[in-house]
Amino acid sequence: MDIPTQSTRVLLNARPTGRPTHADFQVETVDLPPLATGQVRVVNEFCSVDPYMRGRMNDVKSYVPPFALGEPLVGAAVGRVVASEADDVAVGDVVLHGDGWRDVAQLDAAAVRVVEEVPGVPTSAFLGILGMTGLTAWVGLTQIARFREGDAVLVSGAAGAVGSAAGQIARLKGASRVVGSAGTPEKVAALVERYGFDAGIDYRAAPIRSQLPDAAPDGIDVYFDNVGGDHLEAALDVMTTGGRVALCGAISAYNATEPQPGPDNMTNVVTRSLTLTGFTLAAYQHHMPEFLAEVGPWVRSGELVFDETVVDAVGDVGRTVDAFLGLLDGENTGKMVVRTA
Amino acid sequence: MDIPTQSTRVLLNARPTGRPTHADFQVETVDLPPLATGQVRVVNEFCSVDPYMRGRMNDVKSYVPPFALGEPLVGAAVGRVVASEADDVAVGDVVLHGDGWRDVAQLDAAAVRVVEEVPGVPTSAFLGILGMTGLTAWVGLTQIARFREGDAVLVSGAAGAVGSAAGQIARLKGASRVVGSAGTPEKVAALVERYGFDAGIDYRAAPIRSQLPDAAPDGIDVYFDNVGGDHLEAALDVMTTGGRVALCGAISAYNATEPQPGPDNMTNVVTRSLTLTGFTLAAYQHHMPEFLAEVGPWVRSGELVFDETVVDAVGDVGRTVDAFLGLLDGENTGKMVVRTA
Repeated sequence: MDIPTQSTRVLLNARPTGRPTHADFQVETVDLPPLATGQVRVVNEFCSVDPYMRGRMNDVKSYVPPFALGEPLVGAAVGRVVASEADDVAVGDVVLHGDGWRDVAQLDAAAVRVVEEVPGVPTSAFLGILGMTGLTAWVGLTQIARFREGDAVLVSGAAGAVGSAAGQIARLKGASRVVGSAGTPEKVAALVERYGFDAGIDYRAAPIRSQLPDAAPDGIDVYFDNVGGDHLEAALDVMTTGGRVALCGAISAYNATEPQPGPDNMTNVVTRSLTLTGFTLAAYQHHMPEFLAEVGPWVRSGELVFDETVVDAVGDVGRTVDAFLGLLDGENTGKMVVRTA
Repeated sequence: MDIPTQSTRVLLNARPTGRPTHADFQVETVDLPPLATGQVRVVNEFCSVDPYMRGRMNDVKSYVPPFALGEPLVGAAVGRVVASEADDVAVGDVVLHGDGWRDVAQLDAAAVRVVEEVPGVPTSAFLGILGMTGLTAWVGLTQIARFREGDAVLVSGAAGAVGSAAGQIARLKGASRVVGSAGTPEKVAALVERYGFDAGIDYRAAPIRSQLPDAAPDGIDVYFDNVGGDHLEAALDVMTTGGRVALCGAISAYNATEPQPGPDNMTNVVTRSLTLTGFTLAAYQHHMPEFLAEVGPWVRSGELVFDETVVDAVGDVGRTVDAFLGLLDGENTGKMVVRTA
């Protein structure tokens, strides 16, 4: 294979208002400079698109700085090294790094992490179940919500990559009941049939608040929240005393242009002695070995299954934008990844 | 003194809708039966009225069962034993018990706790700073919000009994800044001048959300919430990353007949990795010795001051209702107690 000399990448053209559109993005192809000492050139096999990226498109202070206007977007990617001027990274290595949204990346070797391929598992797994996605599910459940064997667990956005992992980890660790919500009948069916949830709720069929009591007749001890809004409100109705909520995301609010009212039953937090804990993964990366030790065997044995929705952007990097918009619209089942090679 | 043979007490006549009125209560005088073996008769010196009692007047499941219609109200009281058929409680003992809202109580000795009078301190202190009130403040700050020396602390309802104790304990334990909110200019002045807060906010003068950023220019690490509603929303705006909120009460919602919208900035809980923990004291009573060991000396030395608003109900037990309604309207400074003897 010839070593590529150009990189095609996606820029942030404008800050989206509400739902992003294609006009907010722009694709450009640039010539790469010669490799400097210590640098590597990587052909990205897969790039990740994630809900948190929507937040970075706004010009607001958050746990990660906003994307700069007119600059290339970034995000997790996995690829193969095609050229190296670094001692510790070799041509042919599979590496994880942060220069996604492009087909070819060039960066300091210090900014990549070499990973060991797992036979029969595509490298995209390092963007998902064996990477940040799986770790987020595990950390939220075990470290944030302090899951205990026998807990009844609710997961929102449960057909998503994090949600389906969280529900399965709860089941494998001995939950008394695992309930999930999703936005289509097909996804709800997958929760039960594919991921082994005890019950699934289609939150578009009727308000989740009206459906949840039947799905969780004995209440919920642990809620893994990816959605916020009406889902959090519904959960607060049925949480048991001493219940714990891990707040992992708030998809319901990402596109909102007006502040959204919060749950109208926050007094339950007091009267039921609930704990709501928001988290981002930054402070929990050190749990990766413990996570891999517990979850890795389940993935290899097939006890824990994972799905990917792969958008093919080979030769058309602009399709990364389609993948991102589809993610925000809930078109994915499992982790949304973009194939770029 | 003759041993009283009657008890005058307050019944719940109707379940209040919104703000309670006198029509929701009824006063009755009954003859007491002869003391049975193991019982004591207590002349109540002080009875407590507390915000949580409003919740018990609704017919809804909560952490304490609702008051029964047509039955006497109950609540914390401190009094002196005037007759005893129990081995371990003597005439003249000062006892804490749960049969308040009345002038004379008769109950099993097992249901009272003998306390040791502190010279120069009225027995009403056992209903407040040296009792559940002080313990609530200490538990919320140290066990729930995990206060650390150097934290910037916000207390809402800060001129109240729990709030003024929480703010002072925070100061005495080394807070970098203590900010409180209250509902009148006089109370706000007391926060700074009497309780040693660094800043006070009059939440009736302007929305707290607009005032708080100036009062807490470096943000808030620990929020002790007695109010909920707009106060919690304002706090979530300024909480620092990793901040902790102890949710102790929600006075703003107690009289609401419609569900109140929650904070419109709940996504901050995720992006700033906040923890919101509701609590009631039931699970934390065992901290009483640790609490008394730390806070007792501060009370005796005068480093920690406390206020009481005493409503005189001697000979007119019905004035307990006035005290309770005044509490809900914020007419008290410090602990609201009712003198019944």
